[in-house]
Amino acid sequence: MKKSIEVFAPATVANVGCGFDIFGFAVDRPGDRVRVTLTDTAKIEIRKITGDGGQLPREVDRNTAGVAILNYLEKVDYSGGLEIELIKGLPLGSGMGSSAASAVAAVVAVNTLLDSPLHREDLLPFVMAAEKTACGSAHADNAAPALLGGFVLIRSYQPLDIVRLPVPDWLYCVLIHPNIEIRTAEARAILPEKVPLSSAISQWGNTAALAAALYRDDPELLGRALQDAIVEPVRSRLIPHFEQAQSAALTAGALGCSISGSGPSLFALCRDQNTADEVAEIVKNVYIKNRIRCESYVSQINREGPRILG
Amino acid sequence: MKKSIEVFAPATVANVGCGFDIFGFAVDRPGDRVRVTLTDTAKIEIRKITGDGGQLPREVDRNTAGVAILNYLEKVDYSGGLEIELIKGLPLGSGMGSSAASAVAAVVAVNTLLDSPLHREDLLPFVMAAEKTACGSAHADNAAPALLGGFVLIRSYQPLDIVRLPVPDWLYCVLIHPNIEIRTAEARAILPEKVPLSSAISQWGNTAALAAALYRDDPELLGRALQDAIVEPVRSRLIPHFEQAQSAALTAGALGCSISGSGPSLFALCRDQNTADEVAEIVKNVYIKNRIRCESYVSQINREGPRILG
Repeated sequence: MKKSIEVFAPATVANVGCGFDIFGFAVDRPGDRVRVTLTDTAKIEIRKITGDGGQLPREVDRNTAGVAILNYLEKVDYSGGLEIELIKGLPLGSGMGSSAASAVAAVVAVNTLLDSPLHREDLLPFVMAAEKTACGSAHADNAAPALLGGFVLIRSYQPLDIVRLPVPDWLYCVLIHPNIEIRTAEARAILPEKVPLSSAISQWGNTAALAAALYRDDPELLGRALQDAIVEPVRSRLIPHFEQAQSAALTAGALGCSISGSGPSLFALCRDQNTADEVAEIVKNVYIKNRIRCESYVSQINREGPRILG
Repeated sequence: MKKSIEVFAPATVANVGCGFDIFGFAVDRPGDRVRVTLTDTAKIEIRKITGDGGQLPREVDRNTAGVAILNYLEKVDYSGGLEIELIKGLPLGSGMGSSAASAVAAVVAVNTLLDSPLHREDLLPFVMAAEKTACGSAHADNAAPALLGGFVLIRSYQPLDIVRLPVPDWLYCVLIHPNIEIRTAEARAILPEKVPLSSAISQWGNTAALAAALYRDDPELLGRALQDAIVEPVRSRLIPHFEQAQSAALTAGALGCSISGSGPSLFALCRDQNTADEVAEIVKNVYIKNRIRCESYVSQINREGPRILG
């Protein structure tokens, strides 16, 4: 019998309003699944991808799941082959950390199959290398929460310094995915190179307050801190009906609502499941009324990261 | 017998490295003292100032202690007179929150004499009005910690949103005051109006990490978070021997060292009193060797704010 394993890795929300490039958290669903099988052929190949509408590259060195595995194999002692099957549960280019989820599921699957020669945290560089392939820069704000679960602060990239923040029990996330594609590279290109010092000050007041709110278990402060003075005003122009959707979410009781990653998905944070369910319904309706197909997901914050399915 | 009271208010460190305009904390010493006496003359007057080398204005409406009191008296029911005596323990223009300390001591003294018609927190606007007189803008990063004690985050000014952060028991602050005067207005004028987005991202990673470090009781993270990519590189040019002093502090074991407020004072945070004493000695020597007069102060973080002396 060939040795084989399937791993689920979750969607993630990067930026989280005020924290462009520094905050990210994982949700319980949706997510991607990757099945990896050890073979004795010495070949690393992607055998099958489902759920991507045929859009993802099948070449191992161009696919994020493949790139993560290739980088990982440079560091461990394994000379056999691998067959990779990727089951996309996440829409592509959605701002929900699709590329990170595939890379995390893939690399955790292989590491588990090889009896975990590396610790979970040590897999992060391989996922970041995959992110570089997918979106041009080795960002960690989806990669780290997809791999580690929970709410993550990336204090610095040089050197990489990751701080795991507490996750309040009451915290629910609504993800809304209107069916419009935005490329991460495009969403980055429209950002200004310089920002007004006064806006930057508002932003760093909010990032500090957001961290404090998670420790204090303080939903009101969390809501006040979610405001983004710098990125949201620019990127929201790429997202049709953003203002209407955001305002509907806040009216329905969301603590805050902003762009998930580089969009077009929106996230809203809520203080309980009932509110989250209502917010999901109301924001979804904004898009449906405007004849844009739209999915919504309600979930707690995922504390464990990837899950071995067997 | 005339009703009279004396109040001490502490020095404060604003900005705290990464947190320009949003962080501040109070120390146990040094500080200013203000004695206020109720009179039946209906006149508000400054009777005496000591410790200022004759530099502070004696007119009530031009002196921060006086301005705070005048603003306070507009909100409470008191038609009698006041005599104010100001005993400066803080050097002027030092970056240690001298104007805020005088204003806080003054307004707390009057409020106490009048049987505290306003809560301590409600006195902040009067201190901020005094700050506006002293340095041209109504900043709260000295005013709030001088009034409330502890480590304070100003999340926002519009509306004013102040978050009190926890203070670890082990945390000691060294204040070093080289005898050079820098005017706050000048120190603000040299700041850029716009900053690179990449530096701003480093900064908001650090402010979030600094808040997290206080909650986690994590000296290493606190040290890593104290870095300032935006203000220190510009303002440190106004402070002779800054780099040498900072590097001496870090070599002696300080977790971090940067400019206190708008300078020229430096602060260093340390994980125990022994280290703090050594850091104080070593940094002081940097200035003394360069023939600059210099005082140093070692203290824990002040948790209570102003103190009624009787």
